[in-house]
Amino acid sequence: MEGNATSDPRPHVVILGGGFGGLAAARELADANVRVTLIDRRNHHLFQPLLYQVATAGLSAPSIAAPLRQILQNDKHVTVLMDEALDVDLDRRIVMLAQGELPYDALIVATGATHAYFGHDEWERYAPGLKTLEDAFTIRRRVLLAFERAEREDDPEKRQAWLNFVVVGGGATGVELAGTLAEIARHTLPREFRRADPRMANILLVEAGPKLLPAFAPDLTEKARRQLEKLGVQVRLNTAVTAIDEHGVMLADTPYPARTVLWAAGVAASPLGRRLGAPVDRAGRVLVAPDLSLPGHPQVYVVGDLASVTQANGNAVPGVAPAAKQMGRHAALALKARLRDGSAIKPFAYRDDGSLATIGRMAAVAQFGRLKLSGLLAWWVWLIAHIAFLIGFRNRLVVMLDWAWAYWTYQRHARIVTGTDERTNTQTLPRDA
Amino acid sequence: MEGNATSDPRPHVVILGGGFGGLAAARELADANVRVTLIDRRNHHLFQPLLYQVATAGLSAPSIAAPLRQILQNDKHVTVLMDEALDVDLDRRIVMLAQGELPYDALIVATGATHAYFGHDEWERYAPGLKTLEDAFTIRRRVLLAFERAEREDDPEKRQAWLNFVVVGGGATGVELAGTLAEIARHTLPREFRRADPRMANILLVEAGPKLLPAFAPDLTEKARRQLEKLGVQVRLNTAVTAIDEHGVMLADTPYPARTVLWAAGVAASPLGRRLGAPVDRAGRVLVAPDLSLPGHPQVYVVGDLASVTQANGNAVPGVAPAAKQMGRHAALALKARLRDGSAIKPFAYRDDGSLATIGRMAAVAQFGRLKLSGLLAWWVWLIAHIAFLIGFRNRLVVMLDWAWAYWTYQRHARIVTGTDERTNTQTLPRDA
Repeated sequence: MEGNATSDPRPHVVILGGGFGGLAAARELADANVRVTLIDRRNHHLFQPLLYQVATAGLSAPSIAAPLRQILQNDKHVTVLMDEALDVDLDRRIVMLAQGELPYDALIVATGATHAYFGHDEWERYAPGLKTLEDAFTIRRRVLLAFERAEREDDPEKRQAWLNFVVVGGGATGVELAGTLAEIARHTLPREFRRADPRMANILLVEAGPKLLPAFAPDLTEKARRQLEKLGVQVRLNTAVTAIDEHGVMLADTPYPARTVLWAAGVAASPLGRRLGAPVDRAGRVLVAPDLSLPGHPQVYVVGDLASVTQANGNAVPGVAPAAKQMGRHAALALKARLRDGSAIKPFAYRDDGSLATIGRMAAVAQFGRLKLSGLLAWWVWLIAHIAFLIGFRNRLVVMLDWAWAYWTYQRHARIVTGTDERTNTQTLPRDA
Repeated sequence: MEGNATSDPRPHVVILGGGFGGLAAARELADANVRVTLIDRRNHHLFQPLLYQVATAGLSAPSIAAPLRQILQNDKHVTVLMDEALDVDLDRRIVMLAQGELPYDALIVATGATHAYFGHDEWERYAPGLKTLEDAFTIRRRVLLAFERAEREDDPEKRQAWLNFVVVGGGATGVELAGTLAEIARHTLPREFRRADPRMANILLVEAGPKLLPAFAPDLTEKARRQLEKLGVQVRLNTAVTAIDEHGVMLADTPYPARTVLWAAGVAASPLGRRLGAPVDRAGRVLVAPDLSLPGHPQVYVVGDLASVTQANGNAVPGVAPAAKQMGRHAALALKARLRDGSAIKPFAYRDDGSLATIGRMAAVAQFGRLKLSGLLAWWVWLIAHIAFLIGFRNRLVVMLDWAWAYWTYQRHARIVTGTDERTNTQTLPRDA
C-alpha cells in the first residue's frame, strides 16, 4: 500500500484528519526532512465556522469547502489519501485504515468531534446536528420543505406545526441557526407563498443552562439574547428538552409541536480518541501531555477538538478553529525539534485572539480581552474576520458576492432541495425527478 | 386541498412541471383572467443546459437552480405547489397528485423527459445519466472518487481501470462531458496526485451512429470530432455498447475496462405522457394537435420535451430549451384566445434560433441558418448565450466569476465529494464523517 514511497528514507509522518489542526500540522512540516501522509475520509477541507450558512441556504457547499489535494498541491512532501482511520496499533506503529494498514514513524491525530445526543441517539433522526456538508444539506432540505408542507396543509393546527422550528442548544451554532431561520421566515419567504404565511413561523431557541453563548461575558450574552429576540426568535433559558419525536419536543413536561427540530447541543470527540489507550474526558477528548503528545508515546500527538487541554488559567482550550490551528502547528514544531536533536519545546499555550459570534442580520457579539462589541460593529468584525480566514481567494470573492447579494435583496441563493426527505412520503421526491 | 382558492371564480389553469415550458406558460398567463397552479416535484427550476458543469465540478448547484417560488414571486396569479402528478382524469378534469386531487379548467402538461437505457435498465447503476441535480452529484462523486481510488491502487492494471472513463452517446451532453473530463485529467488534477498520474486517464466517447452532434451540419460535426481529439478524447463512431457492468463496457465484442461509465445516449418522455390516452411516439412523446392541444381535449396542452411536434420541413422540433419555451408560450396564447372568445390561433411553428454545442476549453460549434462557426469564436458565442439566458442576475454574475476563475487557473471550484459511493466500500465514506 505504501507504493514506491517505501524506498524513501525520510521519517514518515502520518496525519489523521484534514481539518484546521491536521492542515496546520502538514503545512508546518514543509521545511522538515520528513514525508507526510494526510488521511481524511472526505476529499475536502471544510470551513466549519460557516457551515450554518450552507444549512440555511445562504452559501453553496463549494464556497466553504476545498479539495485537500488542491490546498496541498504545492506541498510536495505531502501525499493525500482518502481513507478512514479505524484504529491505531501504538506498539507496531501502524494505523489501521478501512483500505489497509499504514506504518508511521510519527503520528498526529486530528480527527475532531461530531455532535452527540447525551445517550439519546434515537433523537438524531428527528433533530439533525450540524458537522458535515451532508448534515447541512439535511437541515436545508428540512427547513425548506417545512414551508412547502405548510403551503400544502389546510388544517391550521397541522400547518402551524410545520411552521414551528425548535433549535436545541444556545451555543454559537444554535444562535446562528435560530437567528438565520428568523430572517428567512420574516424577510426571505413571505412574498412567495400564497396560502401559508411564513411570518407565522415560530423560531424557538431552547437552552438548558442559564445563558446563551457561555464563552462570552454576561453582559454580552444578555445583549445576544436581546438581539435574537429583536430578530423574532423566542429564547427559552433554563429549559431542558426531555424528549424529541416527529411531532415535536417536550420542554420539561410541556409538549411543543414542531415538525422541524435542529440539534446544536452536544459534542463528542471522534471515537478514535478512545482507541489510543490514554485517559479521556467526559466528551471522549484525550488528556494529552503539555506538548500535546500522547502520554507515554512521544511520537504520537493529538490536536484540535480531539484533545483536552487545560490553560494556565484553569479554563479548557475551546473547541474552535484558531485553537485547532495553533495545536496542529505546535505538534509539528514539537515533532521537528524531537527529530532534529531529541529536544523538547515549551508546553502548548493557547493564545486567545478573541471570540466572535454572529446572531443575524447586522447583529453579533465580539470579545477581545477587555474590549467588548455588540450589534452592527461586532457584525462587521465578524464578517471581515470570516471572509479573511476563508481558504482560497476565489471562495472569498464568491462569499463576499453572495453576502452582498443577500444583504441587499434578503434573498438566499442556495434555496434548492435535493435528496429525499426522510420525514415525509418519499414518493413525492423521487431520485430521478 | 384547494384551500380558500375554491371561492375564486376565475378559470383554474394547472401547469404540471416547472421547466422551461411550464415557466413560459405561467408567465404568459399573467395578463389573463385566470388563476394558475404550478406543480413540480422539485422546489427549483433547473437550467439544464449547464447541468454538465455541475457534474464536472465547474459550477455549484445553486448557480444553475433557482426556487420556482422565487422566480414567480411577483406573478400573483400563480400558486406554486411542490407535489408529483401521478395521473390525469381527463373526463372529470382532475389531476391526481401524490398528496391529493386537483381539479382544473385547463391543463398544461410540461413534465419533460429523462434518460433511458433502451430496455437495459440494469445499466443505470453502472452508467448514471444526467437529468437532475442528484444525477450531477452522482457523476461528480464517481469521477472524483475514481481518481482517488487510482491514487490508492498499487496494481497497474487495476489503477488504469480507475483512470479509464467511457461516455456513451455522442450528442451534446456526451460531447460536453467527454471534453470536460479530458480537461480535468490533463490540466486540473496532475499537480495534485503523487502516485497515479491523472494524465494517464483515457476518455473514450462512444457513439453508435456515424457522427457526433447529429443536429449539426456534416462539416461541423467533423470539426467537433477533431476538436475533441485535440483535447485528448478518443472518439469511437459506429460503435455500439452491448453490455455495461462494474468492470467496464463491451464495445461490440471487445471488452473495455473502465470503472466509470457515464450515460448520455437515450431520452424517454415522462411516463405521464402515456397516461393521456393519445398516441405517443417511440420515446413516449405525445403526438399533439397543431396548436399543441391534446387531440380531442382542447383544454389540455402538452409542451416541451413531452410533446412530439413535426415542423413544416418534416423535421421534429428538437428537445431543447428554446423549443420548450416557445411551446409553453404558444399553449398559453392558444388558451387565452380560447377563453376570450373561443377562437383558435395559428398552429405552432418552431423558430430555430440556431444550434450551439460546447466541446471544451475554447472549443465549440455553432450553426445559425447558413452561418457556421467553430473553435474559439463559437465558444465565445456559446459562453455569452448561456450566461445571458441564465435565470437571475446573481447567478449570471457568479457563473461568470466561476468561469473566469476556471479559465485562468484551470481549477474547478466545486470539486467536493458528498454522499456515499454506491460502487465502492461505503464504510470508507460514512454519513457522519
